[in-house]
Amino acid sequence: MSNVNQLGRRNFIKGLGAAGAVMAAPALATSVSAEGVKWDETVEIAIIGSGFAGLAAGIEASRQGCKSVTIFEKMPVFGGNSAINGGLFAAPRTPMQKEKGVDDSVERMVSDQLKAGRGVADEALLRHVASHAMEALQMTMDAGAVFHPYLQQLGGHSVPRTYQTTVSCGAGITQPLLRECRKVGVNMVSRTKFDGFIVDEAGKVVGVKLKKGYYFGEEDTGEAINVRATRGVIMATGGFAQNVDLRMAQDPTLTAEVGCTNAKGATGEGMFEMFRLGAIPVHMAHIQSGPWASPDEGGFGYVSNYSIFNFPHSIAVNRMTGKRFMNEIADRKTRADAELSCRDAKGEALPPIMITSYEHANQHPNCKKVLKYGVGWKFDSLEALAKHFDVPLKALEAQVEEYNGYVKSGVDEQFGKNMGKAKGKYLKAPFTVVRLWPKVHYCQGGVQTNTKAEVKDSFTGKRIEGLYAAGEVAGGMHGVSRLGSCSIPDCMVMGMTAARSIMGA
Amino acid sequence: MSNVNQLGRRNFIKGLGAAGAVMAAPALATSVSAEGVKWDETVEIAIIGSGFAGLAAGIEASRQGCKSVTIFEKMPVFGGNSAINGGLFAAPRTPMQKEKGVDDSVERMVSDQLKAGRGVADEALLRHVASHAMEALQMTMDAGAVFHPYLQQLGGHSVPRTYQTTVSCGAGITQPLLRECRKVGVNMVSRTKFDGFIVDEAGKVVGVKLKKGYYFGEEDTGEAINVRATRGVIMATGGFAQNVDLRMAQDPTLTAEVGCTNAKGATGEGMFEMFRLGAIPVHMAHIQSGPWASPDEGGFGYVSNYSIFNFPHSIAVNRMTGKRFMNEIADRKTRADAELSCRDAKGEALPPIMITSYEHANQHPNCKKVLKYGVGWKFDSLEALAKHFDVPLKALEAQVEEYNGYVKSGVDEQFGKNMGKAKGKYLKAPFTVVRLWPKVHYCQGGVQTNTKAEVKDSFTGKRIEGLYAAGEVAGGMHGVSRLGSCSIPDCMVMGMTAARSIMGA
Repeated sequence: MSNVNQLGRRNFIKGLGAAGAVMAAPALATSVSAEGVKWDETVEIAIIGSGFAGLAAGIEASRQGCKSVTIFEKMPVFGGNSAINGGLFAAPRTPMQKEKGVDDSVERMVSDQLKAGRGVADEALLRHVASHAMEALQMTMDAGAVFHPYLQQLGGHSVPRTYQTTVSCGAGITQPLLRECRKVGVNMVSRTKFDGFIVDEAGKVVGVKLKKGYYFGEEDTGEAINVRATRGVIMATGGFAQNVDLRMAQDPTLTAEVGCTNAKGATGEGMFEMFRLGAIPVHMAHIQSGPWASPDEGGFGYVSNYSIFNFPHSIAVNRMTGKRFMNEIADRKTRADAELSCRDAKGEALPPIMITSYEHANQHPNCKKVLKYGVGWKFDSLEALAKHFDVPLKALEAQVEEYNGYVKSGVDEQFGKNMGKAKGKYLKAPFTVVRLWPKVHYCQGGVQTNTKAEVKDSFTGKRIEGLYAAGEVAGGMHGVSRLGSCSIPDCMVMGMTAARSIMGA
Repeated sequence: MSNVNQLGRRNFIKGLGAAGAVMAAPALATSVSAEGVKWDETVEIAIIGSGFAGLAAGIEASRQGCKSVTIFEKMPVFGGNSAINGGLFAAPRTPMQKEKGVDDSVERMVSDQLKAGRGVADEALLRHVASHAMEALQMTMDAGAVFHPYLQQLGGHSVPRTYQTTVSCGAGITQPLLRECRKVGVNMVSRTKFDGFIVDEAGKVVGVKLKKGYYFGEEDTGEAINVRATRGVIMATGGFAQNVDLRMAQDPTLTAEVGCTNAKGATGEGMFEMFRLGAIPVHMAHIQSGPWASPDEGGFGYVSNYSIFNFPHSIAVNRMTGKRFMNEIADRKTRADAELSCRDAKGEALPPIMITSYEHANQHPNCKKVLKYGVGWKFDSLEALAKHFDVPLKALEAQVEEYNGYVKSGVDEQFGKNMGKAKGKYLKAPFTVVRLWPKVHYCQGGVQTNTKAEVKDSFTGKRIEGLYAAGEVAGGMHGVSRLGSCSIPDCMVMGMTAARSIMGA
């Protein structure tokens, strides 16, 4: 197979065998040497994954003058997990903030994120993204994305800075970006799975092995091809929340029975292949569960965006006590941990309930769907509500009265919630109620990258040449807990950054 | 270099180049294919690293009938970081527990550890170790290790179950184990650095590349040799607390300026090479700082064991307030986090002080050294103590009086400390005082292993054949925070387990 006597510093890489025909047996993602490889195609930039990061990278590469950029997507449809996310986009100093007189800054957004990151977030990456978030938001608008005319203040954010697509979903961004990609000449190929890197003698990534015509879940499908990338490879392959074995390795409680908001393709093999190449695994243990999810529906569902919108003027109540148990707009980890502590007398899970005045809940388009599909309930009185959910009525009545006092005074004496967005929004019948229970939502962990979207090698401490990573596949930026609506700017800015790094912009 | 047309499922492995002479340029740990390799030596079992895990593996392999086992150590002396650790060994149902009437069990120890692990510890691994801890303790005693005649109850443990070597240091175990290794015929080679795996076509680890005559820190030293391991390779290479870049990747606050208790060799390249082979990185973000360390001395020093011994009958005081700020025997993470929150008015670090009655402090052999080397102080009165450390005297006096009330009642109303070990031990002059500030101590993260010490592959979910890992290089067992004195049983039991797995015992 080989006949080498002189192996140097990068002998691992140099020693990789040449690529060739893939046998019928399941072909796992594995990297090979470029020497003697038969190239089936050549592009300037190969992008793996078609979520926010991949799409933004494609558009930006084209804008920077790249004539040949191709996005490879393993699933039959484009958009990845991004297409089914909440469509929430945080950015400082936006036109809508200006219009509404919200005093915000890059530093303020970074400061909010550092707090949620509990001391281990990557400040340089956060600042880089916040500094370019408005550019990325503009890219979505230029492509035709449409946002609600109001700003939301999500948990952990100190001011309202979150836009949301009118369709309340990430597809409101991925679809316009996809059209833009086609318009500017980005080549798009679906059902094509990443199957490993092709690396030259100096250790530089010079191409990718792919399986063309691949059917997700059928590992022996697809024809092996080798694609040369003369300028670079951008890995935008997302997280691994749907890979039960690998998420359980980090947190044994995240079994297959635990809900997950992610698309099925979020299985992490692109990330693990980068570890095999020498990338540094960062914060793999930090897997975030969304505190706004409902146990009454699958995935992200309808309740998530409904409750994200309503938390500021709602109360979350422990059914055993009839009392609030958390600041409804604390960061995600704080709330998810608090919800998980809601148990019955036997210690079994007892999902808490979120109570909202119907008149306010109905301001969100999902309210009707939540009620229609039976994942939310409407009650004419606290009595009926308490009876339905077996909550102690007197305690609940006292809690509602107490909370309405906070709405009036503007000071939450129970949990220090910022009552700014609850002003004038008293809790009164009729009420709508949803149940809450966290679902696996986001992997803070991934490969370590810098503000150029370059990937660091664990032995040399230097970048792995030719390789870039952007979006959820990268780790460390957010630390222990990512704030809501900060993933889309992360993905898009780092995708754009990867393209700029490659193009020398 | 290569000329392969048929690559299959393990084509990455199959495609690895053959090993050869290493050039003068820095040779990084890198793995190669076994095909065409020139073997310089052949052993049955190759063990990398000579700390607790490696030594226990060597002895057990020999006991199980292995005729040829060699331990390779990169440093000039044997014992690794183990030789300078605290020499604290937790085990349930020991002779000393029986003698002292302590009611303990495997389940009780596992339960204590799961609590410190904050829900993400690997229960099966913890139970496996606790079940075999007494066997490992026996191995150290049979080899000649000598322990104090008392049991300690360390932070987070619900009962006293910790033995300590009379030399108050891990060398009290590694030295006897080293002698035992030589006695039973385990071959020991120092200054020999692991430089990558040698892997056959099926993906099985069949040997290791080594650099013989290596000088630590001089990467171009040493002669490259290839050692065949016919039965298996056991990686017992320890943690990465001394690798500043890699620990900062997980926690940016752990800069070079932050103290570290570990030996210089704890740099993690064995672990990272396993990731390159496909091992699963688990809990890399969980790096533990020791709450018993002193900012007034380097490394583990004299204070650490002094304070571990004295915490049960001492108070830790915030110098700004003159008040206690934590349960002095909570788990390590709880205490380290509490200490890090002790700041002056400007937010600068203000290391808290631990106050102990001299008559009790002096029961530990380190007390004299702490005073002699100026890393601890003795005071005849609270006044003198308060003046020296600029602590508000009245508050401190009130705190001491209040605490002595808890000593009397047996109930700590401030922090719920278990006062069992403080019985009759009132705080009274003269006092000894040390300053506390956490130091990087232990990496909970590493490669995922099972209860056979086998290493799992991230793509196949199956074991990597021929490869075993034991000790701190493995990750996941302890979760977010490891309890004190649980590393030696972990290392030794998993080292013994690796040997038994290989020998089919």
